[in-house]
Amino acid sequence: MGRITSSRPITRIRLGYGSTRRPDTLAVEEPLEIRADGRPVAVTMRTPGHDVELATGFFLSEGIIRGSRDVVQAIHCGGPGTGGEVNTYNVLDVTLAPHVPPPSRSTERNFYTTSSCGVCGKASIDAVRTVSAFGVTDDDLRIAPELIASLPDTLREHQDVFDKTGGLHAAGLFDAASGELLVLREDVGRHNAVDKVVGWAAQNGRLPARGTILQVSGRASFELVQKAVMAGIPMLSAVSAPSSLAVELAVESGLTLAGFVRGPRLNVYSRPDRVLEPAVEQQGAGGADVGTEVEESRPAAVR
Amino acid sequence: MGRITSSRPITRIRLGYGSTRRPDTLAVEEPLEIRADGRPVAVTMRTPGHDVELATGFFLSEGIIRGSRDVVQAIHCGGPGTGGEVNTYNVLDVTLAPHVPPPSRSTERNFYTTSSCGVCGKASIDAVRTVSAFGVTDDDLRIAPELIASLPDTLREHQDVFDKTGGLHAAGLFDAASGELLVLREDVGRHNAVDKVVGWAAQNGRLPARGTILQVSGRASFELVQKAVMAGIPMLSAVSAPSSLAVELAVESGLTLAGFVRGPRLNVYSRPDRVLEPAVEQQGAGGADVGTEVEESRPAAVR
Repeated sequence: MGRITSSRPITRIRLGYGSTRRPDTLAVEEPLEIRADGRPVAVTMRTPGHDVELATGFFLSEGIIRGSRDVVQAIHCGGPGTGGEVNTYNVLDVTLAPHVPPPSRSTERNFYTTSSCGVCGKASIDAVRTVSAFGVTDDDLRIAPELIASLPDTLREHQDVFDKTGGLHAAGLFDAASGELLVLREDVGRHNAVDKVVGWAAQNGRLPARGTILQVSGRASFELVQKAVMAGIPMLSAVSAPSSLAVELAVESGLTLAGFVRGPRLNVYSRPDRVLEPAVEQQGAGGADVGTEVEESRPAAVR
Repeated sequence: MGRITSSRPITRIRLGYGSTRRPDTLAVEEPLEIRADGRPVAVTMRTPGHDVELATGFFLSEGIIRGSRDVVQAIHCGGPGTGGEVNTYNVLDVTLAPHVPPPSRSTERNFYTTSSCGVCGKASIDAVRTVSAFGVTDDDLRIAPELIASLPDTLREHQDVFDKTGGLHAAGLFDAASGELLVLREDVGRHNAVDKVVGWAAQNGRLPARGTILQVSGRASFELVQKAVMAGIPMLSAVSAPSSLAVELAVESGLTLAGFVRGPRLNVYSRPDRVLEPAVEQQGAGGADVGTEVEESRPAAVR
């Protein structure tokens, strides 16, 4: 079984105080290729563990099986006797009972399907690199952390539909120098909101989107980092946690990834050189006390 | 363009006080089939509006195009001169420039792909009905709202990985009579967490999962309702908002769907007959004041 959490050094910034570099724990995101009788059916980005349950539940939700008696066995590819391929825990082959019709083409939800048995986060990262039209440059960009910290509130203020329903994700593209909101899109799907922003940038001749920051309302998955990299956006900022693979892709691509951007705090997971040190407030009378820990960087609920 | 919000009558419950029936506004979720040169490439569940941006951004993220000059035109299927099919705003055909290679099979992310031009929420609902092995029964089930209100805290208490990372969704299956937690799974993907729970139920001979409640940490999408219905679970409870299509599928399937389950409040969007009236507290000395509105049912941020 793969890891469920991983540790990485990150830069923690608190406005008015400074920054520290220390390890942080991330939720692991890795692709799982689900096969039926040796044939790839779907690739899903998941947290490793309980993969047989995941495949069984997926097949059941899609109407391919009606219960566990429709499954003869489920084994991770590369198990004993199959040749010992690497990253074997990311491919699961499910042998269906003889009476079960094979899944139809329309059930397939391909994402990064590879023909090898070695599908892994690295392969997904390589796939992004292969097809990227622009890549991330903007090496000289420097962004004030105070500007980054202001983006979630600006995003929230402009979320018209969220106010009515409480049910929409938002993505906003900001000018990294002025903090101006260039475009905001809302959608039930976080990836859709980002696609709409990137599509807007394409239609308005702004690709690659150098000198911008993409702010999202929720968490930062591999898929969102991928979309930012593909559009040449140099920084992605999220209100909540990034996944391990999101951070790995950001590091590999040279994207600056910020997470837990809340109030006076933010974490920077990659390319922290683009984020300036926060202005330090004068201590003493009227100054805030370093010991005043009014909030934690962990959220109260999953976003 | 389709609607962005829709209105539905819902049952609002406040523990200790009672329930009211009144309209609520939902974020619209509808499938969009994206075609390239007439060929279906992907179906995504999205909020209508800015569909051309969405398709452009999706093609760019997948490396199919490098900019808007690679797109000749994008038209909703069934526009003037094409025969006037219904639900035309849910199929978008993108004509790629002649120099652009057609998308490969591996780019396709089929979901509920139909061969007709009339892909719509209704078609998606019908697809679930067609393949459902069990369906939702449990007509006599009656659940105390106080029990429902306790589930998010129980879920949160058992989220081991969330405590370390702040980055995981959770799904838990509870006994509807006793409130006992039967199984909990965490994942970076909400749908994966639910698939793992359903897979667990299948492996443990608990399908159809009559007499249970599925509690999820985030919002309730069409996909999550689908998974609950396919497993025969009679009630889905979410901490945050449901989408319009989630509610429609719940109504059609006879599933009880609760949302914004927070503190002493919850909303019931379908089959409220399965939820008992809350026990009414005595008013007067020591009793809570009806006017004490300590929290709103709208969240402070998207989950």
